[in-house]
Amino acid sequence: MAGSTFGTLFRVTTWGETHGKGVGVVVDGCPAGLSLCEDDIQKYLDRRKPGQSRYTTKRNEGDEVEILSGIFEGKTTGTPISMIVFNKDQRSKDYSNIMDVYRPGHADYTFDMKYGFRDYRGGGRSSGRETIARVAAGAIAAKVLKEMGIEVFAYTEAIGPHSIDKEHWNPSVRDENPFYMPDAEAAERAAEFVEQRMREKDSCGGIVACRVTGMPAGVGEPVFEKLDAKLGQAILSIGAVKGVEIGDGFAATRSTGSKNNDAFCIRDGKVDKKTNHAGGILGGMSDGTEIFLRAAFKPTASIAATQHTVTTSGEEREISIHGRHDPVIVPRAVVVVEMMTAITLLDELLMNMSSRLDKIKAFYQR
Amino acid sequence: MAGSTFGTLFRVTTWGETHGKGVGVVVDGCPAGLSLCEDDIQKYLDRRKPGQSRYTTKRNEGDEVEILSGIFEGKTTGTPISMIVFNKDQRSKDYSNIMDVYRPGHADYTFDMKYGFRDYRGGGRSSGRETIARVAAGAIAAKVLKEMGIEVFAYTEAIGPHSIDKEHWNPSVRDENPFYMPDAEAAERAAEFVEQRMREKDSCGGIVACRVTGMPAGVGEPVFEKLDAKLGQAILSIGAVKGVEIGDGFAATRSTGSKNNDAFCIRDGKVDKKTNHAGGILGGMSDGTEIFLRAAFKPTASIAATQHTVTTSGEEREISIHGRHDPVIVPRAVVVVEMMTAITLLDELLMNMSSRLDKIKAFYQR
Amino acid sequence: MAGSTFGTLFRVTTWGETHGKGVGVVVDGCPAGLSLCEDDIQKYLDRRKPGQSRYTTKRNEGDEVEILSGIFEGKTTGTPISMIVFNKDQRSKDYSNIMDVYRPGHADYTFDMKYGFRDYRGGGRSSGRETIARVAAGAIAAKVLKEMGIEVFAYTEAIGPHSIDKEHWNPSVRDENPFYMPDAEAAERAAEFVEQRMREKDSCGGIVACRVTGMPAGVGEPVFEKLDAKLGQAILSIGAVKGVEIGDGFAATRSTGSKNNDAFCIRDGKVDKKTNHAGGILGGMSDGTEIFLRAAFKPTASIAATQHTVTTSGEEREISIHGRHDPVIVPRAVVVVEMMTAITLLDELLMNMSSRLDKIKAFYQR
Amino acid sequence: MAGSTFGTLFRVTTWGETHGKGVGVVVDGCPAGLSLCEDDIQKYLDRRKPGQSRYTTKRNEGDEVEILSGIFEGKTTGTPISMIVFNKDQRSKDYSNIMDVYRPGHADYTFDMKYGFRDYRGGGRSSGRETIARVAAGAIAAKVLKEMGIEVFAYTEAIGPHSIDKEHWNPSVRDENPFYMPDAEAAERAAEFVEQRMREKDSCGGIVACRVTGMPAGVGEPVFEKLDAKLGQAILSIGAVKGVEIGDGFAATRSTGSKNNDAFCIRDGKVDKKTNHAGGILGGMSDGTEIFLRAAFKPTASIAATQHTVTTSGEEREISIHGRHDPVIVPRAVVVVEMMTAITLLDELLMNMSSRLDKIKAFYQR
Repeated sequence: MAGSTFGTLFRVTTWGETHGKGVGVVVDGCPAGLSLCEDDIQKYLDRRKPGQSRYTTKRNEGDEVEILSGIFEGKTTGTPISMIVFNKDQRSKDYSNIMDVYRPGHADYTFDMKYGFRDYRGGGRSSGRETIARVAAGAIAAKVLKEMGIEVFAYTEAIGPHSIDKEHWNPSVRDENPFYMPDAEAAERAAEFVEQRMREKDSCGGIVACRVTGMPAGVGEPVFEKLDAKLGQAILSIGAVKGVEIGDGFAATRSTGSKNNDAFCIRDGKVDKKTNHAGGILGGMSDGTEIFLRAAFKPTASIAATQHTVTTSGEEREISIHGRHDPVIVPRAVVVVEMMTAITLLDELLMNMSSRLDKIKAFYQR
Repeated sequence: MAGSTFGTLFRVTTWGETHGKGVGVVVDGCPAGLSLCEDDIQKYLDRRKPGQSRYTTKRNEGDEVEILSGIFEGKTTGTPISMIVFNKDQRSKDYSNIMDVYRPGHADYTFDMKYGFRDYRGGGRSSGRETIARVAAGAIAAKVLKEMGIEVFAYTEAIGPHSIDKEHWNPSVRDENPFYMPDAEAAERAAEFVEQRMREKDSCGGIVACRVTGMPAGVGEPVFEKLDAKLGQAILSIGAVKGVEIGDGFAATRSTGSKNNDAFCIRDGKVDKKTNHAGGILGGMSDGTEIFLRAAFKPTASIAATQHTVTTSGEEREISIHGRHDPVIVPRAVVVVEMMTAITLLDELLMNMSSRLDKIKAFYQR
Repeated sequence: MAGSTFGTLFRVTTWGETHGKGVGVVVDGCPAGLSLCEDDIQKYLDRRKPGQSRYTTKRNEGDEVEILSGIFEGKTTGTPISMIVFNKDQRSKDYSNIMDVYRPGHADYTFDMKYGFRDYRGGGRSSGRETIARVAAGAIAAKVLKEMGIEVFAYTEAIGPHSIDKEHWNPSVRDENPFYMPDAEAAERAAEFVEQRMREKDSCGGIVACRVTGMPAGVGEPVFEKLDAKLGQAILSIGAVKGVEIGDGFAATRSTGSKNNDAFCIRDGKVDKKTNHAGGILGGMSDGTEIFLRAAFKPTASIAATQHTVTTSGEEREISIHGRHDPVIVPRAVVVVEMMTAITLLDELLMNMSSRLDKIKAFYQR
Repeated sequence: MAGSTFGTLFRVTTWGETHGKGVGVVVDGCPAGLSLCEDDIQKYLDRRKPGQSRYTTKRNEGDEVEILSGIFEGKTTGTPISMIVFNKDQRSKDYSNIMDVYRPGHADYTFDMKYGFRDYRGGGRSSGRETIARVAAGAIAAKVLKEMGIEVFAYTEAIGPHSIDKEHWNPSVRDENPFYMPDAEAAERAAEFVEQRMREKDSCGGIVACRVTGMPAGVGEPVFEKLDAKLGQAILSIGAVKGVEIGDGFAATRSTGSKNNDAFCIRDGKVDKKTNHAGGILGGMSDGTEIFLRAAFKPTASIAATQHTVTTSGEEREISIHGRHDPVIVPRAVVVVEMMTAITLLDELLMNMSSRLDKIKAFYQR
């Protein structure tokens, strides 16, 4: 099937493998008239680039984006925007130790089962490099949202057991520590924790949270295309994500109706809510308050410690995966969550325009 | 937009409101040749029917399904299967207390924001009755899966803070207690807990888990249509679900790579895994082991206790919602989770058939 | 697969067989706020109803539509509109002469090849009764279009070799003759021609044309979703249609650029065209002038004359098909073409709303 | 909207403008295990390349394809295949004569109406160069079809009024004349006719036909995704196509049921048909005989002769379009029709695999 496309009106199609010529994306359905250049994309790509700190892989990937179509005189034309990031660090390498063995926690075995064989060089299509294409597409969505007054802000909520403290919440420090945590103190604890994992040749996971402000109310489609459902698909489609929560998520299961229901109130003459356990979504539609979601990232699968596994010919074996791997992918995943959220919201905003006859008539009367 | 359709090859389209003439579903793309009659559907509907115990609404809804098309001489023909459940309990009622007020935790406000007005009778389209259509469609999917040796089994893992104990796990008792818990003792604790909430005119939530056995390896589409992503959308599209986990979910964020990676091994001559933290999905594709997921249900929004809210004309007000509401919807949601899982898996199984040229050639040479 | 759904934002899903319980349709994505009742639908259904003249089947089908959902207080709510037409004339019949034989020109053989067996009663899903569902859905689309000032008008251009004469073009007589021809004289010639075919136990075909006025310019999506491409799919999906033309169609192949290009001009201060060989579509988008298309209908496949064919067990045989068949289906197909055109245009109008950033911003600022 | 994607399981997404950096395509859902290299694509691209004869534009475009992803060790991996053709002949040019004027027969006006502005350099996205991407994608589809024993063969049936003669039908001469006509004599008449148009600074159109052999019976989806409907969309989505016919097309409207119905017979022990007026499709599904379709191409819109038009600021003006334009695009469009047919058929073949429960069970039991 064709699982590399996401979205209905703002439609993103990605391609590329980690050790092929490059990775890229085609964004079809971007509204015409948006000022756009490579810098708008690059600043987001730089947030997921390797080599930013000692806690991310040392691979020097460069990751410079080039826009190939869809822009004329500095503006989007409404036609597909094709973007490419050429792979630079393709140094020839000996894959003999992984080409005929299934790495635990990786997609090696499932790719072989599905397709009969696989591109074993660095994971091929299942590599984290695939998310470059998502970030490039999301950068466009985020810019459109910004024009509409909507801001998407993701950050690391936890590295292993070390969560940020709500008391210390400070978004301005997010970009000042290697973990993208809006709490400098938690970041220090995280650093220690990750160092320990690195010494043990092990890895760890964490939680990325995302907040969206400025969303108009009523966006999202009832039933199967609920805003939370589409966000759920978007976030769970990121490699290594094993869970997603909207608002209070699993904690809500231990609450009661009287506490969990967010009381409506009037604030500044407008409908608002006293609390936001719902994460800004009611009945699958935005309620005009802050959208809040969380994504659970499992520990990096590639570890240098010895693991038990099997070969493609069905023999048991030990394996230890050497190379330049992230001890924790969460920091670099923050921008990916942010971008997938942006893509999803923009698509739903565009679809929502056809919900009311009176608005459609007004639109076409202009 | 058209959010009432789910699936690519096995495609489900639902319709209907709680106080309209009925709810229904069209299942398009069901493979031809499946023996099917109303009883196959009804047994699943009976699991979500109200009035099964003192912990579910007393409404007498009947919920008898009628198949209108797509069957000939007892077998599916490959053409759309239309099913309908007529609404029986439409006793005329006074809605004056909710027609111009936004119930907290409900979709009243967001429906008004999206569409300009709403069917205020019992929630209209956002009512839990909408899930009847999902269950009817899922019953067909489950029957196809069973023919392929795949079993989907959902159950209540927790009611409020009361979880089942793995030591007491006993699937055969699931259908013998009002909570559909595979642990009789936990069900007793749950009963006490729910009684207390009822006395307080309050409500509670809980967790539904789902296990799938018999899935072949390699099913699911990399990138945006990953098996976990589509399951995530399916489950989060159920009203009241605020979180979803695959395998260890959020717990994996506090584990390490060496513990969380499932070691491959050979068992009975076949590739297997020593553990299953991944929940049977690697790289977005089934790995041939048990698929495991969890859904977080928030407490029932409708409570008799007094709540603060606003009217449609922008005035603050108190409200208390009377009527026959479930103090906890989790028991009746178990089968909904099971059915949405079945629908998703069947759709992905069908799409997966085109993944390999050699298999396609063999298919058409017959 | 799921071939019974059409449209992206205005999405139509049909179901039902000619000798089953009924035929129906779910319309998802209809904008909220449209006044709608059964009469709005019935008047279009009456145009395709059998028994209108001696040139259509004598079957008494009734074809009364019932709306089951999606309407509240006389207006569409934005949720799915489910409609059903119960089959009335299901008198038990002897199908032994067609159950094991492939009728020439029908889908009997291909249904068996695809699904392994078929509902042989009157063609099952491939019967012309399936178009009832299209007309019911199209009636809604047409009403929305009318609110926007867009009129869709289809008519019979030719019955066999007898075409209307442009000199006699008179839309007001369309509904006054049994062939829905806007030329009373041509209708008389058609009547004679059809009488002759009936005497010969034979059948004939014809051409339906459709004109659309009031379309704004710029609607349609470049490349694969061009307005002509989607109209082409819509029209060719009607049973018995074997060709479609936009504007001059095949005649344009014998013209020259200087004649076929429609010169732009200014009329009443607005951009207009001096001619309309293009049929109102340039580059796959509406150009603001009249949209014009033609559909070619083959002769009715069911004829009483003796035909050569084979049985399901592979033996050659003669067959003659008795029963109450239309000697020409064109008259009853006129409204089907009109409705499929309406569905397609509305869907494209809704999608087009997201083409420009400035308009999106203005839309959400209100 | 996102109109640059076509197909459900074999999914093609194109991008690029004539005077941008290049044009390209992402093919997602290509089955794994197909041997594929640039040469497989290039040989089809060479058939649409300009400069092949004095009857095509003299532009030297090169049009060399590069594969960027989806291939490993010479075989498709099942992941997206990204292909690019860089634009070579981008010599800087004076567009002042067309940037503020609407060329008759072109998409200039409709692009402006839809998007607010346009890339006026050579037509931008609406240029015929967009079909390069279709041909590259179709080359892959055609290779898969060939592996399955299915051959797609398109050719020029007519240039202006000069049609091939069935008596002279000779497929082997198709590639030996500049018009890709399978009748050398007709090609000579066509040459004279085109010469005359060139002398008049005018252009002409023609008809492309396509035959498909080897299709299994039963492929195609009833109702909206009929094989003829999807072929119709595919063909009408090619720029300059104004009509499409399946089998006898419009000629069938003047036939009778007794003549137009194709009698079934037994040939070599298998079901066959004595004639093929239906063009190999019954009820929207392939009937196992030759598929036949025709596409009507309008005359090239760009002509050097003087035309009347309007400017973007609403003034009437004369224009004559100079440059290196094809006097007739039909010869270069032959391969485009062939490739769009291949893409459509492959997609439908893949979808058809899920039509029968017994076949699905057999597939997964292997």
